[in-house]
Amino acid sequence: MSVIQPALEYAQNNKDASLEDLKAILRIASISTLPEHEGDISHAAEWLSGKLQDLGFDSVEIMPTAKHPIVYGEWLKAGPDSPTILVYGHYDVQPVDPLDEWESQPFEPEIRGDNLYARGASDMKGQLVAILKALEAMVHAAHMPLNLKFMFEGEEEIGSPSLPAFIEEHKDLLASDVCLNTDSGILAPDQPALTIALRGLTYFEIRLQGHKSDLHSGTFGGVIDNPAIVLCQLVAGMRDRQGKILLPGFYDDVRELTQEERDILPSLSDEWWLESSGTQTLFGEDRYTPTERATTRPTLDINGLLSGFTGEGSKTVLPAKAMAKVSMRLVPDQVPERIQESLIKYMEENTPPTMTWEIEDLSSATPAIIERDSEAVKAASQALEIVWGIAPVFNRAGGTVPVVSLIKEILGIDSLMLGFGLPNDNIHGPNEKQHLPSFYRGIETFIHFIEIFSGTNKSKG
Amino acid sequence: MSVIQPALEYAQNNKDASLEDLKAILRIASISTLPEHEGDISHAAEWLSGKLQDLGFDSVEIMPTAKHPIVYGEWLKAGPDSPTILVYGHYDVQPVDPLDEWESQPFEPEIRGDNLYARGASDMKGQLVAILKALEAMVHAAHMPLNLKFMFEGEEEIGSPSLPAFIEEHKDLLASDVCLNTDSGILAPDQPALTIALRGLTYFEIRLQGHKSDLHSGTFGGVIDNPAIVLCQLVAGMRDRQGKILLPGFYDDVRELTQEERDILPSLSDEWWLESSGTQTLFGEDRYTPTERATTRPTLDINGLLSGFTGEGSKTVLPAKAMAKVSMRLVPDQVPERIQESLIKYMEENTPPTMTWEIEDLSSATPAIIERDSEAVKAASQALEIVWGIAPVFNRAGGTVPVVSLIKEILGIDSLMLGFGLPNDNIHGPNEKQHLPSFYRGIETFIHFIEIFSGTNKSKG
Repeated sequence: MSVIQPALEYAQNNKDASLEDLKAILRIASISTLPEHEGDISHAAEWLSGKLQDLGFDSVEIMPTAKHPIVYGEWLKAGPDSPTILVYGHYDVQPVDPLDEWESQPFEPEIRGDNLYARGASDMKGQLVAILKALEAMVHAAHMPLNLKFMFEGEEEIGSPSLPAFIEEHKDLLASDVCLNTDSGILAPDQPALTIALRGLTYFEIRLQGHKSDLHSGTFGGVIDNPAIVLCQLVAGMRDRQGKILLPGFYDDVRELTQEERDILPSLSDEWWLESSGTQTLFGEDRYTPTERATTRPTLDINGLLSGFTGEGSKTVLPAKAMAKVSMRLVPDQVPERIQESLIKYMEENTPPTMTWEIEDLSSATPAIIERDSEAVKAASQALEIVWGIAPVFNRAGGTVPVVSLIKEILGIDSLMLGFGLPNDNIHGPNEKQHLPSFYRGIETFIHFIEIFSGTNKSKG
Repeated sequence: MSVIQPALEYAQNNKDASLEDLKAILRIASISTLPEHEGDISHAAEWLSGKLQDLGFDSVEIMPTAKHPIVYGEWLKAGPDSPTILVYGHYDVQPVDPLDEWESQPFEPEIRGDNLYARGASDMKGQLVAILKALEAMVHAAHMPLNLKFMFEGEEEIGSPSLPAFIEEHKDLLASDVCLNTDSGILAPDQPALTIALRGLTYFEIRLQGHKSDLHSGTFGGVIDNPAIVLCQLVAGMRDRQGKILLPGFYDDVRELTQEERDILPSLSDEWWLESSGTQTLFGEDRYTPTERATTRPTLDINGLLSGFTGEGSKTVLPAKAMAKVSMRLVPDQVPERIQESLIKYMEENTPPTMTWEIEDLSSATPAIIERDSEAVKAASQALEIVWGIAPVFNRAGGTVPVVSLIKEILGIDSLMLGFGLPNDNIHGPNEKQHLPSFYRGIETFIHFIEIFSGTNKSKG
């Protein structure tokens, strides 16, 4: 009998209790962006710290930040020769509107078929309860072969404003070998996956001003320049028709994919991309497949444009100002600061003397790559294969999870993205759900992962 | 003694009465765009028709339209051998906000120095009363050497929506030799001017759509095209950095200025243009002076831009749609319909297959040119020179007065722009004023003009 067999059996025999715990935390409306849910936020934090205490964690604390508290807990009983995993998660959820599109109440979990419907069921209370239930099973089976530190924040859905300072301030407390980020998912119920790369982001607002206030286009058209047109000229010069970005030196730091890296990407067809996006025609650099373009290539997008008169009908105004929101998704080894320099250089070289301009840096995150042959990825891969019966695909995400690069930068450790949400879980939307078979498999996968990872990491500590 | 000496003396001796009439109509808050001023609109129309009746006009009528009525009146006592002038004006005014920037109440006329302050004092009740007082003087002196038809509308400040149908429907009634458009002005109290050209206008809204609804720029950036960027690329291709318009065939119909036409333009310095616009740097085709560019050259401007997320902060949206308001000022002999064809051709040739697009035609007016050696312009020029002591400059306006091209198209007659507003009268703004010495000179100028024009046109009728 394998050493984790009792833990797996315990998990198997306690599915109902796991489901009840999931329902319990889903009933707490911990919406981080709405002040009227302040009490629910506290309630969720207390529920989690109570669970960690029940598990016998040595030190459990609800630690205040400038906004919502972070639940911290540690289990260091495996001793200094065993590896330590920092488990990251968040207990806050998105608002629920439009409420009338929900088939059941968002904070009254309801099972329909294989799914449990509630706000936060997939993002990410389902994942939080899965890891807690895996630990409970191992503690109950008296087999917990490594050390754990928990960091559960309550601000992820509002951009984690307090997290950077918290990690910086508690570097020593949080020191670990790897971060297990459970805010993640797989590709389909029968297709386990591991996310091994995330794109970075750098987001700017560009503002042009040509003259003091709006002018009459009849009186001054032809004599006074137009900020809306200049903005369009500048934007047009940033990206060509094939999607190639024209900012000076933009690709200098891009690490080209190896053939092996290209080969292991999941093969998503053009049809898959068309259907998922609701479009008729794909776009982009034809040297790369759509999946490669969406996950491994940097991009430049205009997220918003505003100038002059935008109401109904005609108003012959020569606008004084024009604004564009410009964001770029970055890939290894691009650095937001160098991209910002490139954008400023571009603006300096191309903005005509009729305009003054400014750039506001609105947000940025470095791209993250998780070494596919790291012990954590190998252990997770094995664990997934044991539970699902097939090997996971190695997925690269087009989006950005800033906490991953934050933890890499401040704590110097990699993250492993291991969670069990599904692409069709409607996270952030109405009728969010958790696929229950994936939830139960998730608990088992966490047990296997911890066991395998502890074995391959005995020398660390 | 000149035949008009008695009329001029009457005008001179009745300055106070003229001022009182001006004050009387200025007290009527005939704001055309606000439904609560419906009664004031009627009141102003009645006041004007009363004045025409007092003058002994044969037929005076308040004629209904779909919205605000048109005051029509005719004086045909000079007989069929004498020329007929159609006098155009409007009795409606702009709203008054911001009210707190007015130094006196907008509908309680107040004299400060040489000026009378009230909404509509310059635009254009001052000009309406000036022409009425000129006619009163001539009628009183029993010398009215030509026929007159009056058409005073109440919708000019809301874009004259009922006027085209009205003119079309009353073609025969309105038939005349020339239109005297009194909605005009001079350059300075000591610089009479005649506007001999007006630019046309064609105004479009361009809408692009790339996909059904906004997408996540992390998930789809690099695979799905961006309507905001495509819109910028399209706009950037419409005009070069020097202001040259790049739509196919855009300049085909432009009649180049003769050297003589260039020579007679008022010489406004670069400093004048910089100061009037509140800018640091002028712009445009350097083959032309700023005054030439602003009044005799066609232009293309973006009046508004809108796409995606325009609030504070960052939202990583890949917008589904983008919109631009695009307007062009046209010069002789450009035709709005041909410019629209050119824009459509440009869109067809340049919009990528990732986008669907549509163009809405929001408004258009053909450019107008008033023949400088026409009898009307020559008569007005002489009249101005007699009253002011110096010859008028021939001004070309960069803006558009659609009624001028409307009357040309439907009635087949030219307009003479003869009014006495000043550039600094603050029309449409707070503290609008009428410069009273220019108002009194205006009355005398109208008397001279009618007399001179009737003499040079004895053969017409």
